[in-house]
Amino acid sequence: MRAALLSIGDELLLGEKPETNSAAIAQLLLQHGIDTTQRQCVGDDRRAIHAALAALAAEAELVVATGGLGPTADDLTREALGDLISPGESLEIDTASAAAITARFAARGRVLQEVELRQARCPRGSRCLSNGVGVAPGIAARHGKTQIICLPGPPNEALPMLAAELSSLTHERGEQTSPSTIRCGIVQSCGLGETESARRLGELMRRDANPHVGTTASGAMVQARIRWRGQQATPEAIGSLQERIMALWHPWSYSPGDDPLSAVVGQMLRRRGESLAVAESCTGGLLGGECTHIPGSSDWFRGGVIAYSNQVKVDMLGVDPMSLLQHGAVSAQTARAMALGALSRFSADWAIAITGVAGPGGGTAEKPSGTVLVSVAGRAQVGTTRRFLIPGTRSGIRERSVRLALQALRFELLGCADQPLLHQVAHSVQSGERSAK
Amino acid sequence: MRAALLSIGDELLLGEKPETNSAAIAQLLLQHGIDTTQRQCVGDDRRAIHAALAALAAEAELVVATGGLGPTADDLTREALGDLISPGESLEIDTASAAAITARFAARGRVLQEVELRQARCPRGSRCLSNGVGVAPGIAARHGKTQIICLPGPPNEALPMLAAELSSLTHERGEQTSPSTIRCGIVQSCGLGETESARRLGELMRRDANPHVGTTASGAMVQARIRWRGQQATPEAIGSLQERIMALWHPWSYSPGDDPLSAVVGQMLRRRGESLAVAESCTGGLLGGECTHIPGSSDWFRGGVIAYSNQVKVDMLGVDPMSLLQHGAVSAQTARAMALGALSRFSADWAIAITGVAGPGGGTAEKPSGTVLVSVAGRAQVGTTRRFLIPGTRSGIRERSVRLALQALRFELLGCADQPLLHQVAHSVQSGERSAK
Repeated sequence: MRAALLSIGDELLLGEKPETNSAAIAQLLLQHGIDTTQRQCVGDDRRAIHAALAALAAEAELVVATGGLGPTADDLTREALGDLISPGESLEIDTASAAAITARFAARGRVLQEVELRQARCPRGSRCLSNGVGVAPGIAARHGKTQIICLPGPPNEALPMLAAELSSLTHERGEQTSPSTIRCGIVQSCGLGETESARRLGELMRRDANPHVGTTASGAMVQARIRWRGQQATPEAIGSLQERIMALWHPWSYSPGDDPLSAVVGQMLRRRGESLAVAESCTGGLLGGECTHIPGSSDWFRGGVIAYSNQVKVDMLGVDPMSLLQHGAVSAQTARAMALGALSRFSADWAIAITGVAGPGGGTAEKPSGTVLVSVAGRAQVGTTRRFLIPGTRSGIRERSVRLALQALRFELLGCADQPLLHQVAHSVQSGERSAK
Repeated sequence: MRAALLSIGDELLLGEKPETNSAAIAQLLLQHGIDTTQRQCVGDDRRAIHAALAALAAEAELVVATGGLGPTADDLTREALGDLISPGESLEIDTASAAAITARFAARGRVLQEVELRQARCPRGSRCLSNGVGVAPGIAARHGKTQIICLPGPPNEALPMLAAELSSLTHERGEQTSPSTIRCGIVQSCGLGETESARRLGELMRRDANPHVGTTASGAMVQARIRWRGQQATPEAIGSLQERIMALWHPWSYSPGDDPLSAVVGQMLRRRGESLAVAESCTGGLLGGECTHIPGSSDWFRGGVIAYSNQVKVDMLGVDPMSLLQHGAVSAQTARAMALGALSRFSADWAIAITGVAGPGGGTAEKPSGTVLVSVAGRAQVGTTRRFLIPGTRSGIRERSVRLALQALRFELLGCADQPLLHQVAHSVQSGERSAK
């Protein structure tokens, strides 16, 4: 069974409001074994909505539309659906819906404006879906072989309404659309690179393979998305395939699920009873922000210094001013000294330091924009300093720096700090002086 | 001129990754006087991409597609475009693109895999668009009366490429698509609340008004979006309307444009020759991250301490351990002491401290999740401490805290620190002890 989604609204079309319903609806459909093959978005325009409903109904067995069911003059989904399934006829008032709307306003002591009752209208031959959360009812209708479901825009109203409708639809269609039809899973990696990730997956990525694995690259991360059709796609089978991809991508793979890298690193530290401190220059606090995004991170995250100016590197982290002068703020020596300073000032077991040129200005021939040094130091382990040359914008460089830094610490904890990371151009396992000045 | 947008990718279709390109592209098109009338999304399926390109080209004069231009087997946009504009013919290698890709890999000392050169292929009759940021070139082609532009998925690659192409397209078409057709403008505010923002705009928000003003609320921010059609919509007229809205929303309005609040605050500090330091507990570095997002922020941003644990608050910011014990980490007294500590440790002119319960755990009846204290202290000004009760998730609470804290500093700089902010439940202009212990 193929589904097409339609979102309706000027604000969505023009991108003034992010369109989030489709993603949630596609996920819900997938859980019911229904594949979304197309998504479309149109404005508050009766002709455009009608045309889109007709086109999508010709392509798919299920059309799910959201938006345009409210009381105002620019809510036109009812009219457009009528143009498709009962052209030339006026909308009818659904008495159950009118009663529900009236009761809802009465229960809240609110004055019922006549315009609100516009929401009880529906095309001849359609069926209203009651709204357990808000005012506007949904509408279900059949057009040829296609089932059309129109839902209100707010996700907290649309999703429960759709879930209820899908249960009865699935029940009606029997085994054919049981949840076993499609199963999904993901695996996440950081620092491996898209081409190499794909090479390691080999045949699994073949377009017609079942299970099929696709990849998505974003920042320094690559995600594998498993989709498996048929009876063999048991949760256990998905789990083994995830483990297989984890192994193919080892040690860059960090989660056979949707855990953030910072949560994975935090969990490793928690198990070891160890703590982390950070010293950030070009990322200005984003690494700390990423660590503390994880609830309960106070168990393993101690704190950090945002050492944006050189004076702060000296005053708050004990970086030697002479060394700073000699090697510069963006150097392996400074990164190392920052990490050692954080380690001692915060009495932490581990410290990560980041210093670099995030751009767009500030680069030189020797240290162009995107040059980032990441140093990991441990109380009981010497640590590693890596030099990266990261492409992209200022925010892209900063975001990738944070992720690569977390992966660098993870490699240290795993004992594989000699493995390279994406964008890395130099690498040194430290053996120098341990104490910060 | 009407545009249709197509986003390509299984991960977008199935909602595994949020689709953010369309919104940014629609906004960019609007700035060039081009109305987006339709948006569509399909998976990594050659037949579906071809069908969508054909359908959209029949409806619109401009089709902008994103995604599916990478090196892997599931990147099929080139093939699908070929199926439309030069059916039956193989893709050709664009020599300039192949040279650019080779040079890019050489410059980074990376091994060029043959598969990367797949990205230099394009259909006969099309034209490659160079990518200033990443590897994959875009493609432009004409199909009947329709211009088709295919862009890589990453927004930081797609948007500059489209901007360059639109400039030449607009130039070529002359007056017909001159920006006078539609003009847009925005005004940004923080801490005012959506209902009050709308009330102050009054008649400007009427659906059929021209100019029409809509609002979008996100976090603690409300943005006014002006859309004005016709000859009267001169840049000057838009500018005056922006000024009018700035005045209606004063002092919560902070930009008649898209400047981030941190840039506005940074500009004020730069003009005064003053500097800022931060002390962050529950936001864990996000405020520093927001400040250093702005290029050139080293002129005014000194640094900060991520004081996630109490010990760090004592050791690195000089908070009195007895006071911490007596009032707790989430208290006006601790926030104040953190701000004074940052002020003195960083020798800054201003300091902002944030401490709170970001949840989901850790709340009490007296200090529920969402309780956040923001203290602003100045070298030459006593400062203000505000208590907030912020609704939402952990990340929502943290994000709003950062923005409200920046607005609190801005009010201090403007001399209107007595004005309340959204979610604020208590407010004290400090008169207590100045020195941190």
